[in-house]
Amino acid sequence: MTLKISRMECIACGRTYETEETRYRCDCGDLLQVVHDLDRIGSEFPDLKELFEKRKESFDLPYRSGVWRYHELILPDLPRRKIVTKGEGNTTLYRVEAISRAFGVKNLYLKHEGENPTLSFKDRGMTAGVSWAHFLGMKYVGCASTGDTSAAMAAYAAQVDSMESVVFLPYKKVSPEQLAQPISYGARTLSLDTDFDGCMNLVQRICKHHPLYLLNSMNSFRIEGQKAIGIEAVHQLNWEVPDWFVIPVGNAGNVSALGKGLLELFQLGLIDRLPRIAGVQAQAANPLYLSYKTGFSESIRVKAGDTCASAIRIGDPVSRDKASSIVKRFDGVMAEADESELMEAKAVADRAGVAVCPNSGVALAGLKKLRNRGEIKESDTVVVICTAHGAKFSDVSVNYHTGNLPKLQPSRLNAPLRLPADYGAIVKALDL
Amino acid sequence: MTLKISRMECIACGRTYETEETRYRCDCGDLLQVVHDLDRIGSEFPDLKELFEKRKESFDLPYRSGVWRYHELILPDLPRRKIVTKGEGNTTLYRVEAISRAFGVKNLYLKHEGENPTLSFKDRGMTAGVSWAHFLGMKYVGCASTGDTSAAMAAYAAQVDSMESVVFLPYKKVSPEQLAQPISYGARTLSLDTDFDGCMNLVQRICKHHPLYLLNSMNSFRIEGQKAIGIEAVHQLNWEVPDWFVIPVGNAGNVSALGKGLLELFQLGLIDRLPRIAGVQAQAANPLYLSYKTGFSESIRVKAGDTCASAIRIGDPVSRDKASSIVKRFDGVMAEADESELMEAKAVADRAGVAVCPNSGVALAGLKKLRNRGEIKESDTVVVICTAHGAKFSDVSVNYHTGNLPKLQPSRLNAPLRLPADYGAIVKALDL
Repeated sequence: MTLKISRMECIACGRTYETEETRYRCDCGDLLQVVHDLDRIGSEFPDLKELFEKRKESFDLPYRSGVWRYHELILPDLPRRKIVTKGEGNTTLYRVEAISRAFGVKNLYLKHEGENPTLSFKDRGMTAGVSWAHFLGMKYVGCASTGDTSAAMAAYAAQVDSMESVVFLPYKKVSPEQLAQPISYGARTLSLDTDFDGCMNLVQRICKHHPLYLLNSMNSFRIEGQKAIGIEAVHQLNWEVPDWFVIPVGNAGNVSALGKGLLELFQLGLIDRLPRIAGVQAQAANPLYLSYKTGFSESIRVKAGDTCASAIRIGDPVSRDKASSIVKRFDGVMAEADESELMEAKAVADRAGVAVCPNSGVALAGLKKLRNRGEIKESDTVVVICTAHGAKFSDVSVNYHTGNLPKLQPSRLNAPLRLPADYGAIVKALDL
Repeated sequence: MTLKISRMECIACGRTYETEETRYRCDCGDLLQVVHDLDRIGSEFPDLKELFEKRKESFDLPYRSGVWRYHELILPDLPRRKIVTKGEGNTTLYRVEAISRAFGVKNLYLKHEGENPTLSFKDRGMTAGVSWAHFLGMKYVGCASTGDTSAAMAAYAAQVDSMESVVFLPYKKVSPEQLAQPISYGARTLSLDTDFDGCMNLVQRICKHHPLYLLNSMNSFRIEGQKAIGIEAVHQLNWEVPDWFVIPVGNAGNVSALGKGLLELFQLGLIDRLPRIAGVQAQAANPLYLSYKTGFSESIRVKAGDTCASAIRIGDPVSRDKASSIVKRFDGVMAEADESELMEAKAVADRAGVAVCPNSGVALAGLKKLRNRGEIKESDTVVVICTAHGAKFSDVSVNYHTGNLPKLQPSRLNAPLRLPADYGAIVKALDL
């Protein structure tokens, strides 16, 4: 038997566990992270860049995937035959002149994670999480989620004949859009008489005592897939490190993953410096921003308020400690965006043909603030992580453009113009 | 000045026109197609396969696109700098054991065109159509569409600073999901007091007399982009031609494009035989199927009825003649699928983790029929074109799985299970 390259390690007390152990937290109660023996990866695969380049040439799965192209950095102990993939990743790194102009950054890139198979960045984490569950021989996987997480989990689990997925949802708080994906993928969907936190609590308790594998974001294997966002972006830039990554922050798994991947690239010598990282929160749910203002000396929880950026409406982020240590390590900053700022920023990207979710608007609004106060410079190279597809948020978009979002004065109203079915009237209105 | 490689040619009388001419129909009234000088392409680019392989290695646009990778075959006269792209195409060719089993075809592939930037195959045609409009210096582009076409047109036009798009929609017949994309991309959206046919009629008349460039499916440049679906699929199969392509048919531009691309590959010697093509229609809108039953001797129009496959609810297809000649040339067949058949077939793909639209369900149901009557064999290699993402049809999916589609008895009911927020009750229900 080959010695394993990876282990799980507590982020607080440092205690380690075998990766085959079904466990989501350390005995001390804190989160675990997957830690790889980078020296061994470096010596076993002395020419990783060449390997990754080579894989770009092929249409074949799994290595066409923008996660598994970097297999050795993701889950090196996972056998290739256990990989469950849809060719996720390979998302476009948009560089659009109109967006650059609007934000005053010459070299601005939008990494559009909405172009994943289930339309959000969650696919990257789930291909890793479900593959690992498959490797462990799990028959059941579960999560609590009203949105992207359950869609992605159910979609990947559906590819494994021997696996069933279970989704915990709050009764009557889920739209058809949110329900359609899990039930179509065959997930057993529990509609519980409680709120989201109640669902989360129940799924964790059940996973602890029954053979249901937990795929919420405390699962550290998901982070390994998610970190490919940053790896792929830097690869797309031909391994030239941008000055900044800007990323929306809710439960904080995404920023943690981004930082972890970049740090590993740096430690392996695949990149020669670290970028800075800007994490941005919605003002309605800004505990990490508030904590950052105290130099992360205070651990702050808030009661999250209403926000269009519903996927990051989280008052007590699970991955807060991972995230704060990443922000510090990357000479990073945190910012916040109010509802008007985030919707206006989203509208700029949409208008330029890149349809993004309101959370991506949070990141773009943060970029604008940091640029205005000179923290980010016009000449900096900046990559903004856009987390989901705008098409998942039709109501929000229509309400913005027709002036029906409460308390907001949209600067880019674009309501349909009602006209009679008359040639002359249309020509006159169009003024071609 | 270099002589041009392509011209427009009437599909009926054969009259030719320069490609720079803004024209959608021949003077005789019939449709035009873009015709390339294949001998010249063959001699100017003697090693096309090598060129296409080489482009796979790069992340850079435009040639990372699954359309523009094949630039020489798409619009060879279009200068590279005029290409308007989002890196469309590169959609996964799914091969899923559970789907193969369900349809009784060992080598079954699903080409998932829902994985395009605006979530349908229309992006392939629109990157070509908008690029050509850009090349012609058009300031305004327009179309009538309640769905995928307007989303794609607006998204691509939004990438060109000097271009405005205009969408003609029937008043009050458009859902927020259908409205959100065009208005977000900044399209001028006209909501007209008429039905869809009224919108189509008006946009054609206005485009004829004003500088508004028509991007509905009679635009022959769109077909050139669309045909990359088949080219890319065959390339993904390492230029080994499958026995069958199966494709849903509505306005019939898609099947025409598929056939045109494959024919050109054959004529250029890039493939050594032609596949057969099966076109499948919804029973509620089956004029080409009925016409096929007469050996295409009769040109049949129907009044299209209600169908879950709303995007192909067309009783009088624009590209009927192109399509029938393709079906004949490819030793093809036509089939039809009723509502139950198409929704059941869609549910099979969804359940295996490949979320497709109801139109894709039509194609899959057709496959099943042709397989059952032995036309398609178990040992055949089959590629099914799936045209849009299932996430665009949340209501249809939820209604199917909860048993709320009128007159249908779903075989795969998967309604949410309502439970109290009680540990014991959940464990008992899950029976883990």
